[in-house]
Amino acid sequence: MRQAGRSLPEYRAARGEGSILSAIGDATLAAELTMQPVRRYGVDAAILFSDIVPLHAIGFGVEVEAGRGPVVAEPFRGPSDLARLRVFEPEEDAPYVAEAARLVAEELRGSGVALIGFAGAPFTVASYMVEGGPSRTFSRVKALMHGSPDVWEQLCDRLAAMAAASLRAQIQAGAQVVQLFDSWAGSLSPDEYARFGLPSVRTVVEGVADLGAPVILFGVGTGELLGLMGSSGADVVGVDWRVPLDEARRRVGDGVAVQGNLDPALCLAPWDVVEEATLDVLARAAKESPGASGTGHVFNLGHGVLPETDPAVLAAVVELVHERTAQ
Amino acid sequence: MRQAGRSLPEYRAARGEGSILSAIGDATLAAELTMQPVRRYGVDAAILFSDIVPLHAIGFGVEVEAGRGPVVAEPFRGPSDLARLRVFEPEEDAPYVAEAARLVAEELRGSGVALIGFAGAPFTVASYMVEGGPSRTFSRVKALMHGSPDVWEQLCDRLAAMAAASLRAQIQAGAQVVQLFDSWAGSLSPDEYARFGLPSVRTVVEGVADLGAPVILFGVGTGELLGLMGSSGADVVGVDWRVPLDEARRRVGDGVAVQGNLDPALCLAPWDVVEEATLDVLARAAKESPGASGTGHVFNLGHGVLPETDPAVLAAVVELVHERTAQ
Repeated sequence: MRQAGRSLPEYRAARGEGSILSAIGDATLAAELTMQPVRRYGVDAAILFSDIVPLHAIGFGVEVEAGRGPVVAEPFRGPSDLARLRVFEPEEDAPYVAEAARLVAEELRGSGVALIGFAGAPFTVASYMVEGGPSRTFSRVKALMHGSPDVWEQLCDRLAAMAAASLRAQIQAGAQVVQLFDSWAGSLSPDEYARFGLPSVRTVVEGVADLGAPVILFGVGTGELLGLMGSSGADVVGVDWRVPLDEARRRVGDGVAVQGNLDPALCLAPWDVVEEATLDVLARAAKESPGASGTGHVFNLGHGVLPETDPAVLAAVVELVHERTAQ
Repeated sequence: MRQAGRSLPEYRAARGEGSILSAIGDATLAAELTMQPVRRYGVDAAILFSDIVPLHAIGFGVEVEAGRGPVVAEPFRGPSDLARLRVFEPEEDAPYVAEAARLVAEELRGSGVALIGFAGAPFTVASYMVEGGPSRTFSRVKALMHGSPDVWEQLCDRLAAMAAASLRAQIQAGAQVVQLFDSWAGSLSPDEYARFGLPSVRTVVEGVADLGAPVILFGVGTGELLGLMGSSGADVVGVDWRVPLDEARRRVGDGVAVQGNLDPALCLAPWDVVEEATLDVLARAAKESPGASGTGHVFNLGHGVLPETDPAVLAAVVELVHERTAQ
């Protein structure tokens, strides 16, 4: 569960008031924050506590503002800004990421709990760079991709190389799975995603393929994009709560597993509602879908945990899923 | 085009610093603001400058904060708050709405330009009431609908009566079409929309049916809901840019027209991009879709006009659409 930490008192105690980027810069703390939800919830995988580290680490000038998200002081405006994107060298620029992965992998050894590596997908990272921060309209980044497709392609090439290098370092340090967060892909139309989003996702997936770690591709509001996402080479496609999981499976197509898709907002409703919704996700995941073989499913929320969520509810969801999917 | 005014200098001059609700309360000003985009852009319809007026007019305690949206000082928390929702009497509580509609209808008489009335759909209005303002997660309103479906139903019944009464008054004052804004319906899963959103939309549509004005049902991020929206009784279903219009037509089904769906963000891109996207919308709208008869289409943006849009671009879009659709 993405952002599972932020509803936990032990997370808030360990994080204190510092920025997320300084917490990530402290491998011991990042490892501890990664482990907390595993201990509390008994989930089957830990996800490395991370954010848009490579961009920060090469000095592009990005900070993460609490309650707002990544903010870029000098946004990317045109071809001259490409020079600000030097090659990211994981071991030199951000050795703490691999170090945190090593610490977590060591703690998890023999437990059967997997470690998932973390990277932002090129479009989503670029959207922060171009808009200067989180956006509701994505008008600047869309103007750039449509208006200067050559600059866009070069920007995405660099961001794809950055994401792949970061994921490779995490896999080599012990991550068995990686997740590529294209959180805002759902703001694109299918044509836009096919032209401006998907190609660099493919590049990232191909860039880690030789290491054999399954790739999860995540986004929100991606109902119209699931077929394209299923064709990215990723092994698993994340789905939010808007698309019923059996329909999502049909869209992502053959041989691709689905992840999701309990609505995180529902975790604030009475337990019988949460229970019914959880069982519905499991039932839809288990349904045979015409046109899609296999029933691979990673149970998850459809988006990040809301900060006001009661940890006991999430623990009960995990227990319920384990109980119902036990062999 | 929804919110077409806010990119216009004459709009900003006429509005001044006052709140939107006081501008609406001044029928002459509201009529002027409604007419401005018609004069500037040569569009085929005016949409009444309005917002969540009925709720404000019965004294529920809602204000519209600039840059944020509707904010409710004392949110709806449970059954005891139902008493705060008295019946809305358009002529007594908000006579300025019908008056503005009359002024606009008079000015438009003989011009061939239609006037569209405006109302918020029950789920969307309720989301402001329950969340206390705009929300990204809709967790409180979802907790209410799932946790207390009986209270939810009563709340929606009252809001449906309110919307229908307001639309009836606007039609009787000269609006030839009405649009029901269920802006945030896309945050609901199809099951949720079917149980908690659609029934009250149907009630509103039925509540104005005898007056013979076509009803447009609008929402954003509603790709998975289009079939349900098409079954609401509305004559036209609005579609954002995420779903290609030919596919949208297939989903809304037989005998229902579509409205949309140029991405407002694209209006900030170079003109050749805007032109290509506009022509693509027209081409998809004109395509014959299996399973849906007719090709009724209201050209529009897929969401509101962005404030930073150059009015000249919107004027050129309107001209292009007129040129290509002229008989």
